[in-house]
Amino acid sequence: MKSKNHLLFLFLVFLSLSSAFLSKKTKHHKPCKTLVLYFHDIIYNGKNTANATSAIVTAPPGYNLTILAGNFHLGNIAVLDDPITLDNNLHSKPVGQAQGLHMYDTKNTFTAWLGFSFVLNTTEYKGSINFIGADPILVEERDISVVGGTGEFFMHRGIATIMTDTFEGEVYFWLRVDIKFYECW
Amino acid sequence: MKSKNHLLFLFLVFLSLSSAFLSKKTKHHKPCKTLVLYFHDIIYNGKNTANATSAIVTAPPGYNLTILAGNFHLGNIAVLDDPITLDNNLHSKPVGQAQGLHMYDTKNTFTAWLGFSFVLNTTEYKGSINFIGADPILVEERDISVVGGTGEFFMHRGIATIMTDTFEGEVYFWLRVDIKFYECW
Amino acid sequence: MKSKNHLLFLFLVFLSLSSAFLSKKTKHHKPCKTLVLYFHDIIYNGKNTANATSAIVTAPPGYNLTILAGNFHLGNIAVLDDPITLDNNLHSKPVGQAQGLHMYDTKNTFTAWLGFSFVLNTTEYKGSINFIGADPILVEERDISVVGGTGEFFMHRGIATIMTDTFEGEVYFWLRVDIKFYECW
Repeated sequence: MKSKNHLLFLFLVFLSLSSAFLSKKTKHHKPCKTLVLYFHDIIYNGKNTANATSAIVTAPPGYNLTILAGNFHLGNIAVLDDPITLDNNLHSKPVGQAQGLHMYDTKNTFTAWLGFSFVLNTTEYKGSINFIGADPILVEERDISVVGGTGEFFMHRGIATIMTDTFEGEVYFWLRVDIKFYECW
Repeated sequence: MKSKNHLLFLFLVFLSLSSAFLSKKTKHHKPCKTLVLYFHDIIYNGKNTANATSAIVTAPPGYNLTILAGNFHLGNIAVLDDPITLDNNLHSKPVGQAQGLHMYDTKNTFTAWLGFSFVLNTTEYKGSINFIGADPILVEERDISVVGGTGEFFMHRGIATIMTDTFEGEVYFWLRVDIKFYECW
Repeated sequence: MKSKNHLLFLFLVFLSLSSAFLSKKTKHHKPCKTLVLYFHDIIYNGKNTANATSAIVTAPPGYNLTILAGNFHLGNIAVLDDPITLDNNLHSKPVGQAQGLHMYDTKNTFTAWLGFSFVLNTTEYKGSINFIGADPILVEERDISVVGGTGEFFMHRGIATIMTDTFEGEVYFWLRVDIKFYECW
């Protein structure tokens, strides 16, 4: 009988300790979900109405809304509705749209500030992901915050690493976004 | 004496198990707090200075700041300071102000991107709630993220469901917002 | 032997209870990290190109981009790239840049809405902090949300209290920001 009691004791000790460990913060620095997506930005230049996916809406004195301004584009805000694809091919079937704003904010280098959402609506992904952050464009990999999500991405938070995959002149930009969610629900 | 020991054992097993369950992530998909609020947006049209609660601040070429642009309003950014009420009556006593920005971002349908705050300052509610997200205006219920709060809503996160309650022409919009906090502090 | 059993019982009761307590939400209203930083905003006025750190990018009818508008600046959006310092001296060595937007949104008092990031890149601080919120400028201390961070501030959330430390005319503004993180990773 004593040995049986001892086994029970040990079992209870194990239970107590394991629950004590489980009760510690369960946040890890390993993503609970990841996504790699591409989006394609074609700036309206006065002639490309059919293809354009973004439009300049503010410009500094001396510039109009159909060309990025000199002085590192300082003073330009653009609104976007860019197709999102699963690979870096503009002509792949879009899985959603990147919507929001992009603004240039520095007078002596290229930096931007971003506030935008990925709106995904396919059988694979259904929901939205909301981002904000500073974008030091010339840096190869820049991190911004994933501050929330809806639908499939309900309440998610994380980090998005943005990379300029390709660009052509000052009109076409292909961006790769590695989304790492660290808080899933 | 043995039966007494058994009762104690059972009690400890119960304690251990219950704490093990409690120690699991306590996040539920049931809101910890909900709020239903209305806000009323009256766009400045050049003649309604006294009543207007929002102002268009950017317009595409060919449009001015006193009328929403054609082409699905693409290129319009509006800043708002809209009264918030507890029911859908514009003339009810406001409990706060909805402040921030609203921008139209698509060339072939009505979609917007929102970044704004509810600033509440009554005996009932005191604090601010911060929102961002894509707003596919034509969808009846659209979800955006509640990314933070202050005062009574300190550190809260959640989802806000926006519904267009009423609109009159392109000048008056009544919106209903169902705020569901899933992270309360 | 019985007394030994009793000690073990008590020990297990203690373990069970303590883990039950630990398993409760471990979020406290005491910051896990704090930072006090200053940023310095010098608005471009058409003559101060060398010193200016921010630029007005939208203005209401009748105003241009080199002066804040009348009517409580309603309709002005400014983009910023302001130096951040550890004390309130503009000439101290900057530890980073405050980048983003600042918009005036009310017709009968001074209020703004802010969306910006602190980009810190020194041996002391390396990473970014992302903020949004309403800024009732005339209030001495106003709280906005820290909605995310990267690098050293990976996934952090909190509250930032903004205070206008000094201003000169309508061109220079010194702001103090007390950042209190309540969610550290």
